[in-house]
Amino acid sequence: MTVMKPFLSDNAAAVHPKLWEAMRAADEPDNPYDGDRLSAELDARFTGLFGRECAALWVATGTAANCLALGTMVQPHGGVVCHREAHIEVDEGGAPGFFLHGAKLMLAEGEGAKLSPEGIAALIDPIRNDVHQVQPHAIAITQASEYGRTYGPDELAAVGSFAQSRKLGLHMDGARFANAAAFLGGSAAEAARAASGPVDSLAFGFIKNGGMGAEAVVLFDPGAVAQVRYRRKRAGHLQCKGRYLAAQILAMLDGDLWLANAQAANAAAQEVAAGCAGRLLHAVEANELFVHLTPAEREALRAQGFAFYDWGADSARFVTAWNTRAEDAAALGKAIAAL
Amino acid sequence: MTVMKPFLSDNAAAVHPKLWEAMRAADEPDNPYDGDRLSAELDARFTGLFGRECAALWVATGTAANCLALGTMVQPHGGVVCHREAHIEVDEGGAPGFFLHGAKLMLAEGEGAKLSPEGIAALIDPIRNDVHQVQPHAIAITQASEYGRTYGPDELAAVGSFAQSRKLGLHMDGARFANAAAFLGGSAAEAARAASGPVDSLAFGFIKNGGMGAEAVVLFDPGAVAQVRYRRKRAGHLQCKGRYLAAQILAMLDGDLWLANAQAANAAAQEVAAGCAGRLLHAVEANELFVHLTPAEREALRAQGFAFYDWGADSARFVTAWNTRAEDAAALGKAIAAL
Amino acid sequence: MTVMKPFLSDNAAAVHPKLWEAMRAADEPDNPYDGDRLSAELDARFTGLFGRECAALWVATGTAANCLALGTMVQPHGGVVCHREAHIEVDEGGAPGFFLHGAKLMLAEGEGAKLSPEGIAALIDPIRNDVHQVQPHAIAITQASEYGRTYGPDELAAVGSFAQSRKLGLHMDGARFANAAAFLGGSAAEAARAASGPVDSLAFGFIKNGGMGAEAVVLFDPGAVAQVRYRRKRAGHLQCKGRYLAAQILAMLDGDLWLANAQAANAAAQEVAAGCAGRLLHAVEANELFVHLTPAEREALRAQGFAFYDWGADSARFVTAWNTRAEDAAALGKAIAAL
Amino acid sequence: MTVMKPFLSDNAAAVHPKLWEAMRAADEPDNPYDGDRLSAELDARFTGLFGRECAALWVATGTAANCLALGTMVQPHGGVVCHREAHIEVDEGGAPGFFLHGAKLMLAEGEGAKLSPEGIAALIDPIRNDVHQVQPHAIAITQASEYGRTYGPDELAAVGSFAQSRKLGLHMDGARFANAAAFLGGSAAEAARAASGPVDSLAFGFIKNGGMGAEAVVLFDPGAVAQVRYRRKRAGHLQCKGRYLAAQILAMLDGDLWLANAQAANAAAQEVAAGCAGRLLHAVEANELFVHLTPAEREALRAQGFAFYDWGADSARFVTAWNTRAEDAAALGKAIAAL
Repeated sequence: MTVMKPFLSDNAAAVHPKLWEAMRAADEPDNPYDGDRLSAELDARFTGLFGRECAALWVATGTAANCLALGTMVQPHGGVVCHREAHIEVDEGGAPGFFLHGAKLMLAEGEGAKLSPEGIAALIDPIRNDVHQVQPHAIAITQASEYGRTYGPDELAAVGSFAQSRKLGLHMDGARFANAAAFLGGSAAEAARAASGPVDSLAFGFIKNGGMGAEAVVLFDPGAVAQVRYRRKRAGHLQCKGRYLAAQILAMLDGDLWLANAQAANAAAQEVAAGCAGRLLHAVEANELFVHLTPAEREALRAQGFAFYDWGADSARFVTAWNTRAEDAAALGKAIAAL
Repeated sequence: MTVMKPFLSDNAAAVHPKLWEAMRAADEPDNPYDGDRLSAELDARFTGLFGRECAALWVATGTAANCLALGTMVQPHGGVVCHREAHIEVDEGGAPGFFLHGAKLMLAEGEGAKLSPEGIAALIDPIRNDVHQVQPHAIAITQASEYGRTYGPDELAAVGSFAQSRKLGLHMDGARFANAAAFLGGSAAEAARAASGPVDSLAFGFIKNGGMGAEAVVLFDPGAVAQVRYRRKRAGHLQCKGRYLAAQILAMLDGDLWLANAQAANAAAQEVAAGCAGRLLHAVEANELFVHLTPAEREALRAQGFAFYDWGADSARFVTAWNTRAEDAAALGKAIAAL
Repeated sequence: MTVMKPFLSDNAAAVHPKLWEAMRAADEPDNPYDGDRLSAELDARFTGLFGRECAALWVATGTAANCLALGTMVQPHGGVVCHREAHIEVDEGGAPGFFLHGAKLMLAEGEGAKLSPEGIAALIDPIRNDVHQVQPHAIAITQASEYGRTYGPDELAAVGSFAQSRKLGLHMDGARFANAAAFLGGSAAEAARAASGPVDSLAFGFIKNGGMGAEAVVLFDPGAVAQVRYRRKRAGHLQCKGRYLAAQILAMLDGDLWLANAQAANAAAQEVAAGCAGRLLHAVEANELFVHLTPAEREALRAQGFAFYDWGADSARFVTAWNTRAEDAAALGKAIAAL
Repeated sequence: MTVMKPFLSDNAAAVHPKLWEAMRAADEPDNPYDGDRLSAELDARFTGLFGRECAALWVATGTAANCLALGTMVQPHGGVVCHREAHIEVDEGGAPGFFLHGAKLMLAEGEGAKLSPEGIAALIDPIRNDVHQVQPHAIAITQASEYGRTYGPDELAAVGSFAQSRKLGLHMDGARFANAAAFLGGSAAEAARAASGPVDSLAFGFIKNGGMGAEAVVLFDPGAVAQVRYRRKRAGHLQCKGRYLAAQILAMLDGDLWLANAQAANAAAQEVAAGCAGRLLHAVEANELFVHLTPAEREALRAQGFAFYDWGADSARFVTAWNTRAEDAAALGKAIAAL
């Protein structure tokens, strides 16, 4: 029998050894909730990383991170513009409706699951400015997008300017923010820069990148912090042993492990992509590949031990992770090329 | 300087070594969310423990566990009867209002933060049966209570019968359920038995008892399971690496570690109690002590290295944990006796 | 100056004289809320009208009627399938998100703003049956639709069977239910019959048909009544002088005034339609006309004293009401024909 | 048989003739919703009445008025301090939990169902300033209170100053505001004046005072208006023939009919009170009387044709209305005196 070479998802990958170390090191008494020494370091560490004053709070999931952040910009009677295929619309079980108390997701179109000012305007310009129609309060973009595409500086600036001009908040779902930043040159600040400054909030994902159960809600709007602190508790997301979450995140920031892990995953994706000429549905910019493959071709790959998800009838999705073995990625690229 | 002897809270104690082992052992690829092999074991393991068909789902906090369970019994326009000093009323940041979509907590009185049929009836009997007043849909009790008191079999049967007779759901907040069960003789089934069967749901706490970040929502009503699964996701509580949570819980159940840990904490509490004659505000049945101590007395104890919280102006709260050192407990008991 | 001939909307038309009489007749002391004699008649009167046991409750708006009814079928974590152009999606200011506590509207396609099993299946069949995606709990159709189109018996049966087969609730928004029933032959029962019986709930509109401020929530599911009663109060919709609302509705039912008024409005619409050959965007089945008209043509009509709304760049919407003067309708038809 | 002399409640009294006239006068085409000429007058008319810039919106019930106003001051994670016997707590079916998305009512004590800085402080000062406890965001007082008691200028100033010092919003439930103002000398401005200015919002009741189905939400905070407009629609409270509600309110303001009606009701109450020496549970300041009466005494009064509600075991509640006949009031006073 063939050993499994896993390309299913980065969301189930093992935890990085340095995070285990950090968590074990946190295994001594400290204040509960976020009163511990590690949690107290977060604001400063993220401020350093982004070169911009910000607050950072741990939560256990990206869903919670996105929704808590959006809650600072969206009133219950308002709406959030997102892409029709955005994770918050398609894969969060209606969490935005819950956390935002019935606010509405407003679905825009855009190539590669990315939004542009044009796409957003096409959606919201026809909305009558009256009480019968839900008004947009914020925009949510995903960096990297649900198709593994990134927003470059110009694209971010355009969306950011648009948001400002319409007085809309701007949130970035960064479940794979590290992979996007790695692709864009390695600067977290740049990958989250909107127009004149950063996005209003960022859900900075670590779990898919070697973490166990900690993401960061990064808030660049100081006025938003108190609300998120209260609502994190109210949503049952204030863990009493929060130091283990803080430990994970700090270990990720130490020596830019977050970036190294993402670079490794991205490199593996490029290795695979090298064999996918003519088959790619989307440019490979992060660690996901969407590849045209017939059922018979997928069958053949699975027979060789590659594990992955179907993507519709004629394609497959491959995801690399921080710990994808280079030989597995190379083998997959070759196997696809050989089909 | 005196070494700190910590009696602040069990909620910040270290993680038990067996849980670390179990989490590390889970560090290989498996299905994400709760599709992994460990999560799949939970239903059967809790069914075995309680001798009664049930479903068990992990979540990261007791707040989430309580609120998700209550959601199965309480409509948004209904209410939950709980004690005036119940954790869900006093210390969960309004989470029930959020998870239950605006349902109301209805506050009953009772000695030791415990409810009785009489106390509940005194609250709800005057409620007019009309649409102008919120009607109770469920009762929530805490085992052990916020004052470390337990419900014995007769008390549970009484509350359970009352709930049935009024067609009210019955939820048990078991943040320190293990400590209660340990005091009551060691049977989980008995500590959660209501009238003719178990309570409808139990938030079985592990975090205060040596866990890191996993509690179990135990549902004895099979009709309630689907709702909790959907709403766990909707609340951002479906972690993608859920196997690490399942691993913690399974390790706690292995060889009844949950019980051994609770017995150790309870024993330490008794050790302390031995020195508190005439000073106890509440009988010590679990691992919490509420002790009359003047400011000067507290000062004296702190000078000896004991760490604990004030409880109002004239008292202190001491909490023991699974890893409280026997010598620390004995020392504290003696120190109090010597005051 | 030309006298205005109003075709803007039926929603601002005068109140029918018989309703004024009925309200004045109600101007004597009676029990508050819905404890009065008139409110007490509603269940029986609607049961008679539909030939089927039902409960009927007054509310002040169609938005409230729709949302209260949907609340009986849709859990907060579920969804409601409706047409992309349904009033509940487009024109109720996000009310479904509020009343349903964050449940989601799921937008299907269909000609004439009508739904069919095929259109609904195309939307919901791709939804994965897992907790990451919101599951549909109900279907909402509009009779007559937002384009003035009606569901005939076969169409209703098809949607009803589909709803049953998928275990989905079925609600009918009947803001212009009377106009639909008038077109379909005058039977309220038939216009609301789904598969083996009536829809689960109907928002039976009276305001656009000569009422002042009373619609009826008609519930054919006896299990749903209590919830609506509680939630009507909870939504601030239980008026203390409810007898004036009941009086309006009863006056509408007396001698089938509801039907006569709708027939009058429909007849006026046909009068207009007679002049619109080749210009109609939708078949005229109720009391709304969507007519292709250039800006210049609209200008010309307005110069003749006709008042109406633009509908996009190249069309106009005309709505007739119970009190549209026959001569105005005939004049409009002729004026359009003469363009 | 004795003719009924009704003292049950003012909430079911007949509609004042001038309001009927005004509604009939509104029975000509105008813009729907609140786009009509009458609704457009409201802001200016209330601004004139209060001598202070404000916005005023009609809604159909006091429950909606209170909850929409509170929504401008209270975040979903916050709380509203009100009296333990406040209408919003006891008699609105949980509406605040719904409109405020799960925010909490925090129950303070106070004589006559009135709040004072001391009573509020006693409740909120013990609240820890941390995320585990719901923080108050606003105070709601009732003028006149649920026991028919009024807040005089000094009392209002004290509560207003307290609210300011704690940065809490201040809402006034004025279901019987007219009766309070009448008692306090007839000035609406004075009856709603807090510290340096008016309360932040007032639910100005007209229905109990001769209206049919229209109350006013009066907003003295210009920043709050947009939210209430959107949320009124979202709550299904934007009636399409809103001009009939505006007509009622304007007729009430014309010639200070609101005040004359309240003065008449208050005078009738005083007439009754004249016979209640030694029996009153609360000073009679508005139009409600709470009178100690044994069951036998109540029986005797009912045998004479007086209709009223029991109030607990040993008392009764009598309410006078704008149209209580002077002879009935006098007769009741005498009948009680004669017991």
